[in-house]
Amino acid sequence: MKVNGAHYRTIWVGRNGWSLNIIDQTKLPHAFEVIELNTLHDVAHAIKSMQVRGAPLIGASAAYGVCLALNADPSADSLENACAVLAATRPTAVNLKWALGEMRKALRNISTSEWVLAAYAKANELAEAEIETCRLIGHHGQSLIAEIAAREGRAVNVLTHCNAGWLACIDWGTALSPVYHAYDAGVKVHVWVDETRPRNQGAALTAFELGAHGVPHTIIADNAGGHLLQRGAVDLCIVGCDRLTSTGDAANKIGTYLKALAARDNNVPFYVALPQSTIDWSMGDGLSEIPIEERSADEVTHVTGLAETGEVVSVRVSPAGSAAANPAFDVTPSRLITGLITERGITASSREGLAKLYPELAGQAQRKRAFA
Amino acid sequence: MKVNGAHYRTIWVGRNGWSLNIIDQTKLPHAFEVIELNTLHDVAHAIKSMQVRGAPLIGASAAYGVCLALNADPSADSLENACAVLAATRPTAVNLKWALGEMRKALRNISTSEWVLAAYAKANELAEAEIETCRLIGHHGQSLIAEIAAREGRAVNVLTHCNAGWLACIDWGTALSPVYHAYDAGVKVHVWVDETRPRNQGAALTAFELGAHGVPHTIIADNAGGHLLQRGAVDLCIVGCDRLTSTGDAANKIGTYLKALAARDNNVPFYVALPQSTIDWSMGDGLSEIPIEERSADEVTHVTGLAETGEVVSVRVSPAGSAAANPAFDVTPSRLITGLITERGITASSREGLAKLYPELAGQAQRKRAFA
Repeated sequence: MKVNGAHYRTIWVGRNGWSLNIIDQTKLPHAFEVIELNTLHDVAHAIKSMQVRGAPLIGASAAYGVCLALNADPSADSLENACAVLAATRPTAVNLKWALGEMRKALRNISTSEWVLAAYAKANELAEAEIETCRLIGHHGQSLIAEIAAREGRAVNVLTHCNAGWLACIDWGTALSPVYHAYDAGVKVHVWVDETRPRNQGAALTAFELGAHGVPHTIIADNAGGHLLQRGAVDLCIVGCDRLTSTGDAANKIGTYLKALAARDNNVPFYVALPQSTIDWSMGDGLSEIPIEERSADEVTHVTGLAETGEVVSVRVSPAGSAAANPAFDVTPSRLITGLITERGITASSREGLAKLYPELAGQAQRKRAFA
Repeated sequence: MKVNGAHYRTIWVGRNGWSLNIIDQTKLPHAFEVIELNTLHDVAHAIKSMQVRGAPLIGASAAYGVCLALNADPSADSLENACAVLAATRPTAVNLKWALGEMRKALRNISTSEWVLAAYAKANELAEAEIETCRLIGHHGQSLIAEIAAREGRAVNVLTHCNAGWLACIDWGTALSPVYHAYDAGVKVHVWVDETRPRNQGAALTAFELGAHGVPHTIIADNAGGHLLQRGAVDLCIVGCDRLTSTGDAANKIGTYLKALAARDNNVPFYVALPQSTIDWSMGDGLSEIPIEERSADEVTHVTGLAETGEVVSVRVSPAGSAAANPAFDVTPSRLITGLITERGITASSREGLAKLYPELAGQAQRKRAFA
């Protein structure tokens, strides 16, 4: 998507043919900085510190992280170490482990002397595939927005939570891909952007990328969505997903579940946009099976932003003596999800809905469980 | 309640017998500062700028504001002007208009030469009545906590939103009065404190007052409550109220509705604590009738807190070009409220429930509507 009229992706191989470039997302929205990653450690740090974040981008970053490790040392030990280090950076994102698995598979039965080339080829392929996947999610999802625009004859109000736009992916995004497709096709669309405490990915990233591309949007406190839904100010909710179980339960940024409840209470459709790589076929019940990452309490007690002096400053909002808890995700049960928007089309968020779009994968998963 | 072991109220008449003292709540939790109000303008500013906030405290402050105006000029014009200025400070709080009405009534049929004395007497009486009301709310509500403690044999987890503690009242609080009563009686209780964006009254005020009194508590992002409710980490929700309709719909701080939905979805009781003065008998359907205050977008785009330098600093979290919307309240429909905790006891949040506790007022309101 565009920043100041120029097209960007969130990760790309540098002109030297091996180093990586990323947009430092911890600096957004106050500064747009491209940084270079040269080592496995750089990539692990970038994922852990959330310079790169969002399920698809984390997956692609991990794949390229393997490339950097092999570029420095193309050995089996180096590969093992890279996979272990990268897998430990973020426990919840299933794409991370999936991407590492794909890298391992691509290197199997290839002599180590060819690993570097094969690794970059595979990582590039994964990145291009993610972009195509996101494009298809947008292609399928835009019809939901276009239909409302045609019916109502006015701008369509979409509510989204967290950042599942191109910054979370490599291009297009998941939840925002339908919005960009509709906008680029001339459909009038306005986005309610949940600020998404505690890390403010909505206020900082979603608002930035929508604004940079030109899409009308309004930031709201996470608390405001229920009120807007009650008042008819939201036509459609679209969120991303960090992990979807085989029964259609969705783990996503903390607070997603509350919006799904409010959408249901007000008969507003609630869609989850995701690529196939986000589906965890090994899991059934989301509430009991998906592990939820507990992040640092500092993210709740402190807020980072731009001071009047032009410096980026962290301020404490709570009393020094008060503890804070910070679960990073919650699980939205499938019963609250109107549908899934995937690269293969729109379907019900259920075992049956998934089986229609992914018969080969759903069948495999069920056979595995039957023999387990 | 206590701060550093000393007992405080949120508003009191100074030793000179006429000026007012308040705790400047905009400075909390980073500084505990008592300031003196000497004029009607001081009081109006204190209400508008939220140095005093919370329905009962706003009501008492307005009553004392009339006192200060009459102390300077005990005339009918002065009274009219004071009521107009004070009524315009906050549009949603029904206590404000109620308190001003009580002051007018108290001065009716009294010669202006006696107004100052009569005004202070009435304002003191209103303040003492608010404290007694809050004490009774806690007295009735503590049984809900004590019962769970007895049944489960462990600390009871209460979730609350915004600040409806003693800082919002004059002493005890509404939603937190049952907590203080239970805690003071030796019942083990722990409070999940919603930070309550955009103004962070939970993180700043509720956490401060619970900590200052010694009550165990944990601050969470507003997004986290649904997850905690899903996981059985919440036994009971208790929130305050800015306006309750005669049918039991409750306007409270934005985001309350989302927590009520999540409590219902997880079969956790959701109580609204309020004094009789918060009930607006003239209103029926909350969603269509309660006006919702839209506050400044800056409250969403900027966050104030304590920087490492020791200064209180405001930082911008969003891109400069992004708009924000800031509805300050939402309406929780009566169907989502398990019960009301009032100074007369606990009752259903419905016309029938209210009629049981307030037969004289409910009957009056219905007769008025019948003849309207």
